[in-house]
Amino acid sequence: MIDKVRLAVVGVGNNTSALVQGISFYRRTGSRVGIGRPEVDGIGVGDVDVVAAFALSGDKVGRDLHEAIFAAPNNFPRIEDALAPSGVVVERGLVDDGGIERVAGLVKGAEVLLYSAPSGRPEIARAYAEVALTAGAAFVNTTSDPVARDPELLRRFEAAGLPLIGDDLASQFGTSVLHHTLLRLLAERGITLTSSYQVNLGGTEDFRNLVANPNTKHQSKVNALGSAQVQIAPLGYLPHLGSQKIAHLNLEAQGWAGTAVSLDVRLVVHDPSGAAGVNIDLVRMAAGAARAGRGGYLAEAAGMLKSPPGTAI
Amino acid sequence: MIDKVRLAVVGVGNNTSALVQGISFYRRTGSRVGIGRPEVDGIGVGDVDVVAAFALSGDKVGRDLHEAIFAAPNNFPRIEDALAPSGVVVERGLVDDGGIERVAGLVKGAEVLLYSAPSGRPEIARAYAEVALTAGAAFVNTTSDPVARDPELLRRFEAAGLPLIGDDLASQFGTSVLHHTLLRLLAERGITLTSSYQVNLGGTEDFRNLVANPNTKHQSKVNALGSAQVQIAPLGYLPHLGSQKIAHLNLEAQGWAGTAVSLDVRLVVHDPSGAAGVNIDLVRMAAGAARAGRGGYLAEAAGMLKSPPGTAI
Amino acid sequence: MIDKVRLAVVGVGNNTSALVQGISFYRRTGSRVGIGRPEVDGIGVGDVDVVAAFALSGDKVGRDLHEAIFAAPNNFPRIEDALAPSGVVVERGLVDDGGIERVAGLVKGAEVLLYSAPSGRPEIARAYAEVALTAGAAFVNTTSDPVARDPELLRRFEAAGLPLIGDDLASQFGTSVLHHTLLRLLAERGITLTSSYQVNLGGTEDFRNLVANPNTKHQSKVNALGSAQVQIAPLGYLPHLGSQKIAHLNLEAQGWAGTAVSLDVRLVVHDPSGAAGVNIDLVRMAAGAARAGRGGYLAEAAGMLKSPPGTAI
Amino acid sequence: MIDKVRLAVVGVGNNTSALVQGISFYRRTGSRVGIGRPEVDGIGVGDVDVVAAFALSGDKVGRDLHEAIFAAPNNFPRIEDALAPSGVVVERGLVDDGGIERVAGLVKGAEVLLYSAPSGRPEIARAYAEVALTAGAAFVNTTSDPVARDPELLRRFEAAGLPLIGDDLASQFGTSVLHHTLLRLLAERGITLTSSYQVNLGGTEDFRNLVANPNTKHQSKVNALGSAQVQIAPLGYLPHLGSQKIAHLNLEAQGWAGTAVSLDVRLVVHDPSGAAGVNIDLVRMAAGAARAGRGGYLAEAAGMLKSPPGTAI
Repeated sequence: MIDKVRLAVVGVGNNTSALVQGISFYRRTGSRVGIGRPEVDGIGVGDVDVVAAFALSGDKVGRDLHEAIFAAPNNFPRIEDALAPSGVVVERGLVDDGGIERVAGLVKGAEVLLYSAPSGRPEIARAYAEVALTAGAAFVNTTSDPVARDPELLRRFEAAGLPLIGDDLASQFGTSVLHHTLLRLLAERGITLTSSYQVNLGGTEDFRNLVANPNTKHQSKVNALGSAQVQIAPLGYLPHLGSQKIAHLNLEAQGWAGTAVSLDVRLVVHDPSGAAGVNIDLVRMAAGAARAGRGGYLAEAAGMLKSPPGTAI
Repeated sequence: MIDKVRLAVVGVGNNTSALVQGISFYRRTGSRVGIGRPEVDGIGVGDVDVVAAFALSGDKVGRDLHEAIFAAPNNFPRIEDALAPSGVVVERGLVDDGGIERVAGLVKGAEVLLYSAPSGRPEIARAYAEVALTAGAAFVNTTSDPVARDPELLRRFEAAGLPLIGDDLASQFGTSVLHHTLLRLLAERGITLTSSYQVNLGGTEDFRNLVANPNTKHQSKVNALGSAQVQIAPLGYLPHLGSQKIAHLNLEAQGWAGTAVSLDVRLVVHDPSGAAGVNIDLVRMAAGAARAGRGGYLAEAAGMLKSPPGTAI
Repeated sequence: MIDKVRLAVVGVGNNTSALVQGISFYRRTGSRVGIGRPEVDGIGVGDVDVVAAFALSGDKVGRDLHEAIFAAPNNFPRIEDALAPSGVVVERGLVDDGGIERVAGLVKGAEVLLYSAPSGRPEIARAYAEVALTAGAAFVNTTSDPVARDPELLRRFEAAGLPLIGDDLASQFGTSVLHHTLLRLLAERGITLTSSYQVNLGGTEDFRNLVANPNTKHQSKVNALGSAQVQIAPLGYLPHLGSQKIAHLNLEAQGWAGTAVSLDVRLVVHDPSGAAGVNIDLVRMAAGAARAGRGGYLAEAAGMLKSPPGTAI
Repeated sequence: MIDKVRLAVVGVGNNTSALVQGISFYRRTGSRVGIGRPEVDGIGVGDVDVVAAFALSGDKVGRDLHEAIFAAPNNFPRIEDALAPSGVVVERGLVDDGGIERVAGLVKGAEVLLYSAPSGRPEIARAYAEVALTAGAAFVNTTSDPVARDPELLRRFEAAGLPLIGDDLASQFGTSVLHHTLLRLLAERGITLTSSYQVNLGGTEDFRNLVANPNTKHQSKVNALGSAQVQIAPLGYLPHLGSQKIAHLNLEAQGWAGTAVSLDVRLVVHDPSGAAGVNIDLVRMAAGAARAGRGGYLAEAAGMLKSPPGTAI
């Protein structure tokens, strides 16, 4: 029987709620539903123990992790009805690059440090990478802040024999991959795109933040779909959706002799599920590589990242 | 400048209307909209001349091809406003395997004979293959009747240095390829399908016939999607749709920890356009191979056929 | 506090499952969700006791009602997790017009007899009306079999001071009322309908029967929508939908100067819920009228019936 | 034969393009498609002559009205292929409250002055009302700027025997009326709304302005639907949509015993058509009333206005 992966998480938001509840769900049920890779380097989805967690909110710090994941503004649904206390108390995280030693002392020998805080604070992201180096843990950066794209940091992880995975998590299944797939399908079949749009609606704190600061994400989406014919409508923050994301896609195209081809899609997913389904793979890859003595970037993670090393910062 | 392909067509239904009007559209406009392969063996989409056409209906036989393609029950829209007379008079086709010599004498030196009649009359299909052999033309069978799957026929075409392409046209873009693509995408991302359905609505004579004889097509669709979770609703013949086909697809699935993923799609296409967009490629492949002296089956056509040689009859 | 209505039900299918579970749900929760009329003649939705039930299936007869409602092919979901035994054992019902006295002796003083069996057996429907007359109970006919439309039967109920409500239940909310509403809205606003379609998909035994015998229902739908532009696609029996019904509606229309107006709708409902939500009202109306000494037809029920007295048989 | 209504229009945007082309369409075809009221006070939809038009853009002023309606940023489609010159040259309109006399001299005896400029310049709106009073014309205010809601102005129109209709045009058919109708239908049937959203996408200059200044319109929509459960997503300006508006509506509700009812709608309309279809009625009402000597507000217009006299400014 394989040793459980010892995991420390930074950020106790919806994505961590989904990850923690999901690990419990798969252990309890033995189900493989929604799982792309039942094992990574021999490590199952239930073979991960969260041993430390860090947050900043007064509603989360000091509480047991299994309570803190349900504190507002988190709104990922309660999947596991009766979660026993985890025994992990959420600790206060970093607010600047002071305190790296303190936090490194609290990760309790974690093999992997998963950085799952909101994007937009690159100094904090790098400070946690220093925590990982200090504590001898692999680092997974799910935010768009550049960490793995920093060549100097990457070199130091490599030298330390510690994996460094990042940056920017690609969801297991979401609007982008679906839109891409449909655009590519039309192109493959010789159907000419006339116009296309995408609208995304959601109710998480992440959505609220993106609505308040739309430009970055919006621009990256447009670039990602790489076509002047594809237009992305502004994100809509609709609190009643909770952690659901709803997307409306439209593709108008022309087939033989210019006759119309029209495609309308409505997609419903839970964003935190899409994150957790990838995080579980990244964490296991990081642990497997660390155990095998492989440090630095892991090429096998590229497909699960939006901005791996080498892409623009 | 390349010699135009001399083409004889059997069947003057919607698919032939789309093919004939489309060739005119591309010649007139120079557009490449809706075209997957601008050239096949150097042959452009406008480099095809219809030199003979065969039908059975009294409303079509004896009329110029450019009038006959608009005769009822054809309902593919008029794309080309002002089609000059083609000079090709629609001839009476075969009603049994008598008359092969007569028809072979009427194909006017066609390089390719495109069999685009309704499915379900295998003797007639094979008789037209004999016409092709007699006249020294390549043969393209777009129906589900077994012709290219008949090893003896295939051997004879091979021996004669004549291409034989078939059987059963796969549409350029339709419900099946879209449904397949979405099912595969979910599987690739580790999302577990719970259930899925597909409803197809159309207004052509082809649809009316399928509704009257649903079993064959329905069964082949179920097999094609290859999953007990995928259910195909009965075809709906809705005359007001004309040559449009409308499909509603639903996929219900489970992601991480069993959370719901839901996908609803509405697709609108013109079935005859989907057929013409593939027929133009098959005809050009057949002509190109014939000119190069390659007889028998053409492996490069496999992706455009539902039942190539080797599949069950 | 009002006396509970004593109710006997004929048919232990999905509709009865929804009715029985719903009464339990409203008693337990005090909720008024999904309820149009909290009280009818002072009778609340929880003020109904089922005192007798009749079925034919060997899987239902002889079992407690709270078990029998979950027997196959019933597939209405289990809404009430922990239903205590009802104390009502399902009795064998009528197979022809013999046994009226026997069944009348088993209704245990019910004030109302709710006939909720499959449509299509008019003799049985009338035999149960005789049971009601014999037992002194009001009669509610939810099937399309003519009972309340039989003037002689109606006269006898009137003479006996017993309410007779029927025929053919209109759902609380379903495809027909939605389609009607949208068609009327367009007409009111001066928008000209060009074409419209409706597709209904479901997974109940009722759907399976309708698919096997489509003509009656289909024809009545067409008549109900009363427009040559509205086309109804064949019903689709998709077992995985369970008691859900999914409808796709499309309306294509023309506004000012012929510009396009297009409306696509996807509706998801539970058919048995739509039936139970109306049955609870009809039963309470019947009980209220019976208690007030009003026999015969009740005009206030007309809006909940497809074929009240006076419409064609 | 009735005398044609002499109409002056302020604003040569999409709505005026739709109105002008539509009048030509109905005269040419005799069609009544998309028309709610073929006659108002005996005046048909073709019985309106535009005799004067005012704009500010250098691309429109000085050009014939039948050219100016196609100048950018107008993007309402060309419905009438061959519009002969109208003979009406677009004049420069007011930029402040100076020039009232000059403009009044240019309306050429119009019976009705239709104010169809962008909302948000209340002084200009009132200045044009003064133009109408000076010229002896009825006034129709389609903007949300308060004109008819100004009691003093209303009194002066009444005293002058001139109709004053406003404020704020309600579309002939659009998202609001559809959403209202669906919400009301659920309520009537006793179905309990859980949540609902609405997304509107469009490509006109009007949409671009609303996206830049979202608060007013958004707030009025929320108020109009009058329910905390209804959430309106931000408007999306998608230029490729042209004058089409696309709306996605969702309604989640609960029926009997809390079972789910779900409704998803996609609506496509042309906003300028929705405006023209109402403007033609308001203009005819104004002319009819003026001819009958009725001044001031016309109660029969209330249903076509969002903010008639008496509503808050």
